[in-house]
Amino acid sequence: MNKEELFHQIKSKGSYLCVGLDTDINKIPKHLLKEPDPIFAFNKQIIDATVDHCVAYKPNIAFYEAMGSKGWDSLQKTIEYIPQEIFTIADAKRGDIGNTSALYARTFFETYNFDSVTIAPYMGEDSVKPFLEFKDKWVILLAHTSNTGSNDFQTIKTEKGNYFYEEVITKSQQWASSESLMYVVGATRADKIKGIRELAPSHFFLVPGVGAQGGSLEDVSREGMNKECGLLVNSSRGIIYASDGKDFAQQAQKQSKAIIHEMSEYLEKYL
Amino acid sequence: MNKEELFHQIKSKGSYLCVGLDTDINKIPKHLLKEPDPIFAFNKQIIDATVDHCVAYKPNIAFYEAMGSKGWDSLQKTIEYIPQEIFTIADAKRGDIGNTSALYARTFFETYNFDSVTIAPYMGEDSVKPFLEFKDKWVILLAHTSNTGSNDFQTIKTEKGNYFYEEVITKSQQWASSESLMYVVGATRADKIKGIRELAPSHFFLVPGVGAQGGSLEDVSREGMNKECGLLVNSSRGIIYASDGKDFAQQAQKQSKAIIHEMSEYLEKYL
Repeated sequence: MNKEELFHQIKSKGSYLCVGLDTDINKIPKHLLKEPDPIFAFNKQIIDATVDHCVAYKPNIAFYEAMGSKGWDSLQKTIEYIPQEIFTIADAKRGDIGNTSALYARTFFETYNFDSVTIAPYMGEDSVKPFLEFKDKWVILLAHTSNTGSNDFQTIKTEKGNYFYEEVITKSQQWASSESLMYVVGATRADKIKGIRELAPSHFFLVPGVGAQGGSLEDVSREGMNKECGLLVNSSRGIIYASDGKDFAQQAQKQSKAIIHEMSEYLEKYL
Repeated sequence: MNKEELFHQIKSKGSYLCVGLDTDINKIPKHLLKEPDPIFAFNKQIIDATVDHCVAYKPNIAFYEAMGSKGWDSLQKTIEYIPQEIFTIADAKRGDIGNTSALYARTFFETYNFDSVTIAPYMGEDSVKPFLEFKDKWVILLAHTSNTGSNDFQTIKTEKGNYFYEEVITKSQQWASSESLMYVVGATRADKIKGIRELAPSHFFLVPGVGAQGGSLEDVSREGMNKECGLLVNSSRGIIYASDGKDFAQQAQKQSKAIIHEMSEYLEKYL
């Protein structure tokens, strides 16, 4: 999917919501455990319930990998079930030397046909580039993440006086344009989003950390939105685990509706 | 496996060789393709041929993941086939927010029963800690890697005048001792190994980049060895693809024998 198509979808739905499919066998409603593939059964109902309100789905690969090869089958079924016009993100946080990154790229872009994959920047250019060689596929590079540990290294000041995550954003723009590169910017860093938007005016940001992790949707939208929206705001637990009963899909729908109600307002106000 | 057991094995074999199982379906000898599981058939013969000469095996997870759920089955069979006394490394380069890293830890330490897993440091403490909660299991943290892109971010100077990778090594020592934490230090950085050894005198280093990537085993051994050896030197392509014919296992054995011949000498000289 290209940037224009993504923005078109955002405008037509009045939404920049990404639903995180962090599907955990220990957290899904008990009645699903008798299904032949409980993880897929859960995802299918979540997708049916939220597909009109979101523009992206983001399975966190850890949850599938933890199930062994069965988990990868559930992931494959899930990705095949998501309609073509929805942007898909493999939240894998991969990154390795060039020839190995090329394999990861094949896995996520060919075997599983994701539109994008999250990548850790630590190993530098040759660990990122193989992902950029696929047409209309995206790298979403970790810049400033939402977790507490993000201050251990990401906010170290360099000898030039920049934060380390600013070096990541500046240097990586030499490798790809905003047509194939996005950044992960945590919603818990709303105070920094304005500065990050100045460094990367036209790139999309994938923003985790609204909801369970405490970030504010309005702050992020006000500080981070650009003229093509430029934001994909993720919610995982707040939506998919809104209820652990038989009404889980209904409650997920209710939550996603509430979020896009807010989002439509911010799109009018800040776009 | 604990550090003492690892060192015991190094002494008794006269080897600190790690064999990288970067098994690629497109590179293994053609006659194996008719086997029900060619990847495992290849690994099994490589293990049989090299098990007396190495102290560790390191499957690079990308190669298995690229095969979909079949690949994970091959990985499981491989890890079960490796004898208990050999150290196993999941070269996965994972790292995510705390609850997600906990899942990755379960995957590699419980589902697959690896002794260790390679981790990217960018997301900080809470992305690493969940891996440290397993007894006699290890985190191998990326410090200064062997690839060309390693100079993009790892050697940025901080305002204190240190290299960024030095910050990673210094800070991470607050999280764990040398009984559960190792570092990845590329052999192509032999000029820096001495300094890194000063920063982390008692930690093991996993050293990729000897052979195909151009690093020198003698330089690494001289500069990096400590009194418990403190080195696991990896060779992947140079051993497992020494031949693409029916004699591939024999040739792999020959290569691994040549390496430990050198290693035994360095153990006498530098230990």
